Amino acid sequence: MSATEGKLDVSRFMAGPRPEGTSDYLMQQTMIRVKDPEKSLEFYCDVLGFKLIMFREFPQWEFNVYFIAPVDSASTPKTAEDQWDYCMKLPGCIEVTWNYGSEKEEGKVYNTGNGDSTGTSDGKQIKGGFGHLGITVPDVYEACERFKEKDVEFTKTPNSGGMKGLAFVKDPDGYLIEILPQGPMIVKDIDCNGVRADGGEGYKDNSK
Amino acid sequence: MSATEGKLDVSRFMAGPRPEGTSDYLMQQTMIRVKDPEKSLEFYCDVLGFKLIMFREFPQWEFNVYFIAPVDSASTPKTAEDQWDYCMKLPGCIEVTWNYGSEKEEGKVYNTGNGDSTGTSDGKQIKGGFGHLGITVPDVYEACERFKEKDVEFTKTPNSGGMKGLAFVKDPDGYLIEILPQGPMIVKDIDCNGVRADGGEGYKDNSK
Repeated sequence: MSATEGKLDVSRFMAGPRPEGTSDYLMQQTMIRVKDPEKSLEFYCDVLGFKLIMFREFPQWEFNVYFIAPVDSASTPKTAEDQWDYCMKLPGCIEVTWNYGSEKEEGKVYNTGNGDSTGTSDGKQIKGGFGHLGITVPDVYEACERFKEKDVEFTKTPNSGGMKGLAFVKDPDGYLIEILPQGPMIVKDIDCNGVRADGGEGYKDNSK
Repeated sequence: MSATEGKLDVSRFMAGPRPEGTSDYLMQQTMIRVKDPEKSLEFYCDVLGFKLIMFREFPQWEFNVYFIAPVDSASTPKTAEDQWDYCMKLPGCIEVTWNYGSEKEEGKVYNTGNGDSTGTSDGKQIKGGFGHLGITVPDVYEACERFKEKDVEFTKTPNSGGMKGLAFVKDPDGYLIEILPQGPMIVKDIDCNGVRADGGEGYKDNSK
């Protein structure tokens, strides 16, 4: 590996079979804690097209979890037991965790990664490893028009910033959500904020 | 919503169609920054059965990204362009981001969420929102025997802690990975660390 040049030979990680015993392993979930689960479910379901697949309540430990995924609800089984089995085989779920009482706290509650300062003792930005969740859509510009109508907070509209054709929005807790196309990167002349394809600023590192 | 009781009526988020315009939206990625991409690729590919789907190098911005998912490499197209299109329609990828030079820093580099203190100015634990990634497997106990042979660091073997039958391991940066079954929770008498099903400690909140 040559760090100076930013090069790494990764060919062996692309080719060949998966190691013995791992062929059925599945990337099922990303868990995030949220301040107010109702606000989060509204955002992910009403704005981003997710459905609630199943949930579990743990009053003895004072938290609930809600598993959501952007899938058709017609496929979701009816019983809690069948929902669990279905969910555990569904790649790309988000596990939304609610610790009781967080919804009554003032302001933001959880550090969302990147350069966020929420949840620190000294109020200073951290060097956060978690970056964002990424949703792909048939048309990034159309999706962003829709988000704008729904008053979603943008940190980057498609034509602002250095990478044209992708966007970043924030969920109710401030987690970053990247919006990407389901195919080649396409750049349109004007985006939902009226930014032209030759406009906007340069590349911005979200961790800073 | 009644926070005192930890109850929330979520039925409307389960039922009904997805909002107009969102039916093709897809949860494609979770982005995490890593200190050393070679170590991370070794862990995710050799231990967790992921394959590298595609990568992009941005020397002008001094970072690379590697998209990985636990899928058969035979399905991965041959050209970078086709790999992009394939990847953007694949739910449950991890986008591994490498900022050049991090691999030369001392110790851990990035805050991994939960109650981690890495990457803070004062060295104190944060209230982290990001919790973990979750991999589902046909048999949690067998998977953990395999992980133990590969010297994976556990924070919870299947029979330790309050929830029997699931495990937590750490990736090279310290991100938590939950290991769950692809079906009903099954508890076996003895786990990879020799902990009995009636042993272990009680429930532990990872955020503390």
